Amino acid sequence: MNFGVCYYPEHWPEERWPLDAKLMRQAGITTVRIGEFSWSKLERREGEYSFEWLDRSLSILASEGIRVVLGTPTATPPKWIMDRHPEIYMRDNKGIVRGFGHRRHYCYNNPDYHVYVRSIVTKMAERYGSNESVIAWQIDNEFGCTDTTRCYCPNCSSAFQQWLEDKYTDIDNLNEQWGTVFWSQIYNAFSEIELPAYTVFPLHNPGMELDFRRFSSDSAVRFQKLQLDIIRSIAPGQPITHNMMGMFNEINDFDLSKELDFTSLDSYPNLMFADKPDPRNAALALDATRGFKQSNFWVMEHQSGPPGGNILFPTPRPGELRKWTYQSVAHGADAILYFRWRTCLFGAEQFWHGLLPHDGIPGRRYEEAARTGEELHRLLPLMEGIGSGAEVAIIRSYENEWIMEIQPQTFEHYYERQLKAYYRYFYNNRIPVDVVSDDCDFETYKLVVLPHYMMAKPGVAEKLERYTAAGGTVVLDIRSGTKLWNNRMDDTTLPGAFRELLGIRITDYGTLRKGESRRIEAADGKHIGQGTVWYDVINCVKAEPIAWYAEDYMAGTPAATRNAVGKGTAYYFGTGADPDCMLSLMGLVCESAGISPIAEVSAPEEVELARRADSAQRFIFAINHAGEEQSLQLAAPMRELISDRVLEGKAVIPAYGVYVFA
Amino acid sequence: MNFGVCYYPEHWPEERWPLDAKLMRQAGITTVRIGEFSWSKLERREGEYSFEWLDRSLSILASEGIRVVLGTPTATPPKWIMDRHPEIYMRDNKGIVRGFGHRRHYCYNNPDYHVYVRSIVTKMAERYGSNESVIAWQIDNEFGCTDTTRCYCPNCSSAFQQWLEDKYTDIDNLNEQWGTVFWSQIYNAFSEIELPAYTVFPLHNPGMELDFRRFSSDSAVRFQKLQLDIIRSIAPGQPITHNMMGMFNEINDFDLSKELDFTSLDSYPNLMFADKPDPRNAALALDATRGFKQSNFWVMEHQSGPPGGNILFPTPRPGELRKWTYQSVAHGADAILYFRWRTCLFGAEQFWHGLLPHDGIPGRRYEEAARTGEELHRLLPLMEGIGSGAEVAIIRSYENEWIMEIQPQTFEHYYERQLKAYYRYFYNNRIPVDVVSDDCDFETYKLVVLPHYMMAKPGVAEKLERYTAAGGTVVLDIRSGTKLWNNRMDDTTLPGAFRELLGIRITDYGTLRKGESRRIEAADGKHIGQGTVWYDVINCVKAEPIAWYAEDYMAGTPAATRNAVGKGTAYYFGTGADPDCMLSLMGLVCESAGISPIAEVSAPEEVELARRADSAQRFIFAINHAGEEQSLQLAAPMRELISDRVLEGKAVIPAYGVYVFA
Amino acid sequence: MNFGVCYYPEHWPEERWPLDAKLMRQAGITTVRIGEFSWSKLERREGEYSFEWLDRSLSILASEGIRVVLGTPTATPPKWIMDRHPEIYMRDNKGIVRGFGHRRHYCYNNPDYHVYVRSIVTKMAERYGSNESVIAWQIDNEFGCTDTTRCYCPNCSSAFQQWLEDKYTDIDNLNEQWGTVFWSQIYNAFSEIELPAYTVFPLHNPGMELDFRRFSSDSAVRFQKLQLDIIRSIAPGQPITHNMMGMFNEINDFDLSKELDFTSLDSYPNLMFADKPDPRNAALALDATRGFKQSNFWVMEHQSGPPGGNILFPTPRPGELRKWTYQSVAHGADAILYFRWRTCLFGAEQFWHGLLPHDGIPGRRYEEAARTGEELHRLLPLMEGIGSGAEVAIIRSYENEWIMEIQPQTFEHYYERQLKAYYRYFYNNRIPVDVVSDDCDFETYKLVVLPHYMMAKPGVAEKLERYTAAGGTVVLDIRSGTKLWNNRMDDTTLPGAFRELLGIRITDYGTLRKGESRRIEAADGKHIGQGTVWYDVINCVKAEPIAWYAEDYMAGTPAATRNAVGKGTAYYFGTGADPDCMLSLMGLVCESAGISPIAEVSAPEEVELARRADSAQRFIFAINHAGEEQSLQLAAPMRELISDRVLEGKAVIPAYGVYVFA
Repeated sequence: MNFGVCYYPEHWPEERWPLDAKLMRQAGITTVRIGEFSWSKLERREGEYSFEWLDRSLSILASEGIRVVLGTPTATPPKWIMDRHPEIYMRDNKGIVRGFGHRRHYCYNNPDYHVYVRSIVTKMAERYGSNESVIAWQIDNEFGCTDTTRCYCPNCSSAFQQWLEDKYTDIDNLNEQWGTVFWSQIYNAFSEIELPAYTVFPLHNPGMELDFRRFSSDSAVRFQKLQLDIIRSIAPGQPITHNMMGMFNEINDFDLSKELDFTSLDSYPNLMFADKPDPRNAALALDATRGFKQSNFWVMEHQSGPPGGNILFPTPRPGELRKWTYQSVAHGADAILYFRWRTCLFGAEQFWHGLLPHDGIPGRRYEEAARTGEELHRLLPLMEGIGSGAEVAIIRSYENEWIMEIQPQTFEHYYERQLKAYYRYFYNNRIPVDVVSDDCDFETYKLVVLPHYMMAKPGVAEKLERYTAAGGTVVLDIRSGTKLWNNRMDDTTLPGAFRELLGIRITDYGTLRKGESRRIEAADGKHIGQGTVWYDVINCVKAEPIAWYAEDYMAGTPAATRNAVGKGTAYYFGTGADPDCMLSLMGLVCESAGISPIAEVSAPEEVELARRADSAQRFIFAINHAGEEQSLQLAAPMRELISDRVLEGKAVIPAYGVYVFA
Repeated sequence: MNFGVCYYPEHWPEERWPLDAKLMRQAGITTVRIGEFSWSKLERREGEYSFEWLDRSLSILASEGIRVVLGTPTATPPKWIMDRHPEIYMRDNKGIVRGFGHRRHYCYNNPDYHVYVRSIVTKMAERYGSNESVIAWQIDNEFGCTDTTRCYCPNCSSAFQQWLEDKYTDIDNLNEQWGTVFWSQIYNAFSEIELPAYTVFPLHNPGMELDFRRFSSDSAVRFQKLQLDIIRSIAPGQPITHNMMGMFNEINDFDLSKELDFTSLDSYPNLMFADKPDPRNAALALDATRGFKQSNFWVMEHQSGPPGGNILFPTPRPGELRKWTYQSVAHGADAILYFRWRTCLFGAEQFWHGLLPHDGIPGRRYEEAARTGEELHRLLPLMEGIGSGAEVAIIRSYENEWIMEIQPQTFEHYYERQLKAYYRYFYNNRIPVDVVSDDCDFETYKLVVLPHYMMAKPGVAEKLERYTAAGGTVVLDIRSGTKLWNNRMDDTTLPGAFRELLGIRITDYGTLRKGESRRIEAADGKHIGQGTVWYDVINCVKAEPIAWYAEDYMAGTPAATRNAVGKGTAYYFGTGADPDCMLSLMGLVCESAGISPIAEVSAPEEVELARRADSAQRFIFAINHAGEEQSLQLAAPMRELISDRVLEGKAVIPAYGVYVFA
Repeated sequence: MNFGVCYYPEHWPEERWPLDAKLMRQAGITTVRIGEFSWSKLERREGEYSFEWLDRSLSILASEGIRVVLGTPTATPPKWIMDRHPEIYMRDNKGIVRGFGHRRHYCYNNPDYHVYVRSIVTKMAERYGSNESVIAWQIDNEFGCTDTTRCYCPNCSSAFQQWLEDKYTDIDNLNEQWGTVFWSQIYNAFSEIELPAYTVFPLHNPGMELDFRRFSSDSAVRFQKLQLDIIRSIAPGQPITHNMMGMFNEINDFDLSKELDFTSLDSYPNLMFADKPDPRNAALALDATRGFKQSNFWVMEHQSGPPGGNILFPTPRPGELRKWTYQSVAHGADAILYFRWRTCLFGAEQFWHGLLPHDGIPGRRYEEAARTGEELHRLLPLMEGIGSGAEVAIIRSYENEWIMEIQPQTFEHYYERQLKAYYRYFYNNRIPVDVVSDDCDFETYKLVVLPHYMMAKPGVAEKLERYTAAGGTVVLDIRSGTKLWNNRMDDTTLPGAFRELLGIRITDYGTLRKGESRRIEAADGKHIGQGTVWYDVINCVKAEPIAWYAEDYMAGTPAATRNAVGKGTAYYFGTGADPDCMLSLMGLVCESAGISPIAEVSAPEEVELARRADSAQRFIFAINHAGEEQSLQLAAPMRELISDRVLEGKAVIPAYGVYVFA
């Protein structure tokens, strides 16, 4: 079991290292992430390598039984590299250099940078590839963080042209796919194409915008591949990961994960300026990370105190770090590393608190982590590798998220909000879900929900038809099938590729602004909630309505429909269902699809119920996110694993308390 | 009668063209605007012209009896031009190039661009100058849209210097007029003068700021002239227009219209994120357009569905397109072209909906337009060329609008708001108005209102004195006469040039912030409303007060005055009259000036009453802007022309309904 | 006594000058500031000097007995200089030139500019150094105004490197102090260091950020020194000042004042968009200015009407200018010059109103100033040089203000707010205070308050220990001692350097967002107010609690403490005290420290009470900031100096009225 911290020995005097290692061991720490951000310490001048300090640190850690995940330091090229090759800096969309002083200040597509990256990674792989302390590698750090995915430098411009040529081969193919005839933008050569940068008005060709996002995401994936290939060739068999950020959306993390051995998440449940962050957000990030490779993952950085750059986020109260740790485990984390060991005395993150305060004296955060570690050492081995056993898949589509970002169509709405509307329903109703790609195997689920599946990826409509024909249940919603995969509008009647699956035609539609909604009724005229965001005027060709608009000019027409397809069913929601509406419609969907919630425990809404289960075993987590104790009701007597006692009937769970039932 | 659409055959397969033309004819369409934005299709590479597709399109349209307004495509220079001459791009006030990807990406003053413009316009004029299908020309498209009037490139810098030298001749004349002695800005040569660009703080010399706005507007006018001259020399007699935008204010549309044969408006009554846009805004844009040449006009682009770039505006409900169309006609449109025929499948405007949806199948919008067309074919010929017959002129002064924009003096206030305060009064009280320039003939009106006439244009004070002496009524208000025509303060006691006309002296004044106001009373102490925005402390030299401040240190002093001048009267409003105050003061003004409202019909406020009239005929429009039916009261039996029946007494007008009485 | 105006003869025809001078004399004006901003008039082309107009103006003024403060015109280099050396312009943090058109458009560190500055200042000193009319000099104008302190040009980059080398000598010393090992920012040479400019994310090394602020402030100080040295060498004995802006914080005004003969303030009590500005803000700016050199000062520009650039601020009501003038005097102004004489007809400040309106005819503002002048001619000589006699010092630390600005740590909070929380307490409770530097002599005060003294300046902890040991009382608060003087965190347990002084240890803490607070109780469980902004969890080692948290996980722990140190006491406030809490805690502090409020008069809160006093004399000012009359209660009969009558018992003070009691 891996339980540990992120550690920066280079920030502290060597005299302190043995004490740190000892305090770590005393807290049950087995694993440390190390090395990322240390480039200027490892190679202070070109070719002058200094690995001795790192060797010494690994030995001291090893002497306390601690092993490491070694990070490549490529997120922070030293100043001497930047001075030699200032063109490595990213540029903003006005062409202005984004200079030195933070991190991630490099462009993925700069060939000069690749030379330096190859060199340092090769050196590290050679030196540590067979070091016994090293149990895994982390490539770079948080690709795509702080707006560093899309660069507008000349290298990116050329690389984009090449990427387009590889994709479209012929410039007139691109002209056709993008529709450049609009506004006289026909190109005569790939070399004429510029990045979608600064113009008189921020409204570019949507096909270009989408391709630029795809290209930028691919650039990060290629950059990672460069390092993966080196480490694998020098240190074959070493597991490699990257620390991603759950719901961040600039890079397609399905693509980024494909070549990794395992995925990792940097989890900060409370980067909010609120005392009580919504635990559904953290849960979704965890589920999304489990979905990247459809397998369990590490939390490589887990919040360990009040984080913050120039502003601090709230301080976790006693018990909060522990219950967040359990939430991570409940959603599939097989390893937990807190970020960071000791709060730094200098630098941009001097207020990003670690387990130890600035003075290095263990206090309440250290104690809480140590207690949690002691428990996890017992619990985690019981459930390693066991997933959620979910019957429901929510499809996450980066491409569709990107096009909604480019063209939200309606104000203050975005893709993730729609996805979260479903997630909230499942979470509240104690139904475990997987958050997966449209490449996944639908057949393993009883229900597949595709939020805002606006562009129909080629083959997905047919795949859904086969899936429903075989008995599956599908939910599609507003704007589905509106676009082709190149971000052009479909020229068939809506819902385009999904017309046959859904058995409807959409002939009219409109936006609903923030705060605006339309009354939705059930067959018996009962008000079941409000339609928000958007309305479709639906003509049922084969489907039957399951909800109706009760106001405006479309009153009396269907707001949601159900279509029987073979042994299965395809639902369409023609408006943004508010929570009431979602409860009513998804209740109907889940019931008919035979979805079973977690029934072993019933609990008030402040208590999250989550599950790890496979065919053999079943662990139920009850996590009290409230600062007050709550009452649970157990359907049958169950063993609570932390306390190792059997509970039954009514059970009290303390403030921020956790129960794990087997 | 011209009734039609904007059409882009180049966006659709040629196989579709005949069906489009047939569907157009079936909807009563006679006229199509075509060609603007098609440059890269007409001249894909330098000198490689391809007009055949356009020839074919014109023939197909002609075969259904449809003729065209041909647009010059200069709003969208192709990429190959920009790559050859990147200095054509506009620059922002920091000198940063505003690059490729939108439209209007060119500088009006770039001499290289002029070469290309001359070339394409010449070619088009030669090819289509005597084509029977072509009934008119449109120059470019929406000059000044999306912040493309003011450019900060080196060419503009030189052109501005030249413009200044032409205007001031001697640099010390400019130094004196601008007052460059302030803050040590004395220039020694015109070549020292830069554009009012990026500085440590955004506060430039007001004289320079005004001249830069004048120069920028002139640059657009000159750019249009370049094209007018070519078309007129090659295709003499062809009427030429430009599609302007009503109340947009960066270009002086009086100047722009001067050389046009007729004016056009692009009318989108609901580019609001509101279900119920204020119909007064659309009405004002229409009246303003009628004022540009003091004659009727075309609506060259008329909203035909939900518009939108990345965000959609609300979908017009059934009936709304029709009633907006009638509103356009009621205010002087002699032709209506919807924008656009079919919603585009690609490009930045793929959500700017046309009459046909993306799938090209006629639906409710097409049907509504067809019905409207059928009606207009009967009605429009009866009233072609007939204006409003207004007795009231509101003077619109771009120069005064610009200086208020440069120096609003009081928070959240601006010129247009003041103009609209009067417009609202007249609209609500069923009084037709013209919105015209200060060059117009005042004598044709009973009442001339000059909102915020801060800079006194040379000669206007004397012209107003003659006009009032002859019996006219004038209204001036806060800040009038404060400045000279070069944006310097007048050094005579306020209201400067209008002191004698108004018979008052202003010795003290102050701003009133948003939400702040002062109680205003009539002679009998009755509260008639609130003074907002500003207060003047007025000393009546010859005038008599008609309203008084009732609070603050100026309590008891005049807030508005009346001065008898010869046979006429000059009013001054010394504070921003709120609607109540405006009702009271303008009621008094209109009554004494003998202004007659539309009296044939009385209607609730949701129903707009408008008029087209000349000495011979009189058409009264009743337009129900509400989604519920309303009751009208007719003063006498009248023929309703759409239904061709006589109505009398109480009449019900349906939701979004329209009546046209003769 | 100096009473006068800022005057720009170059803005007006020479024919007007004698009338202006006569009107000035009639208003009691003795002193005029002149010349700053006149460079392009004094030297229109390089080396072509024209001083004759200024000579003539000085003589005309002298003929009416008026003498001048002569300003060097270096805030506005003429266009011809900028055209010769465009690299003089400031640059923003993206490297973009901030061009011509405003003022202060130069970089302090440009060596070419220094040549021109030396030249014009030398010429002026030579010509006017012994002119009888000249009684003092002003260097430049409002250093640091409108974001002109921090420049990102190449000259600043080199100058910063040199400044750092001078400070740190060795690059590894800098690496250690800044902690550049964080994020791989280790430098190999001073020449590698860039300015903290535009990066992918605005979060730089805090040590670098602080040093850049120090460097920028030093650059202004050095630029002033350049001019001081010239004037002193040519015109020895001439007093020299600079007009500063009270609470502006980009330049360390203690440093700037050190070499000046006397300090000046530009005072605009109502640059607010509010009718009733908080008089505490003006009072604080005045007290802060008195603190710069711990001596009285001039108001070099005093508001004389509605000011404004493109927006006007409110017009002072009758009486307001006079009462603001008295407030200035009450807080230590020994001279008052109104800004400006006559409102300018042109330029960026044509709405910044002077005593005379645009038309030049004296009106109510002139009359009010004349009356005030007549009074001050009698009063000011009685109290010249007499300060506040304060028993309390509030320590203002620019360095600590800067680091809070760089890293506010908690949302919508900043250093000045904390300082004002104390200031408000003292103002409300009629306790005169000095606002001084941490270099001041603490022993002259009974109480020293150090708001947010986060970085402990070397030696200050020891100085405070000595001060308290000798009987002094100290108040420190949240974040005190958290950092070392280089902006690194202290690695000792909090409050770091102040642990022994305060007798506490802080082991946990957290932010409180805007609107969030924690209940604070006294020993008897009484609710005394709310803790805001921040909470410390305090462990009393030697101190005793004086207030307790009553909610959240730290309920029952100390919120504020008192530690007896020798004969004195050191208090710590561990949370941001709201006004109620401040009243309770500071009440306790002041009582035990024996602070005596102004007791001669009691007055409602709208009436400010202020004092000028020394061992021999004592003047009490009562200033009614309200627009309604108020009642005072006098403890004993006192002579009111303006009216020269004795008042006793209850006295009515009119709206905006002022009494000065001896």
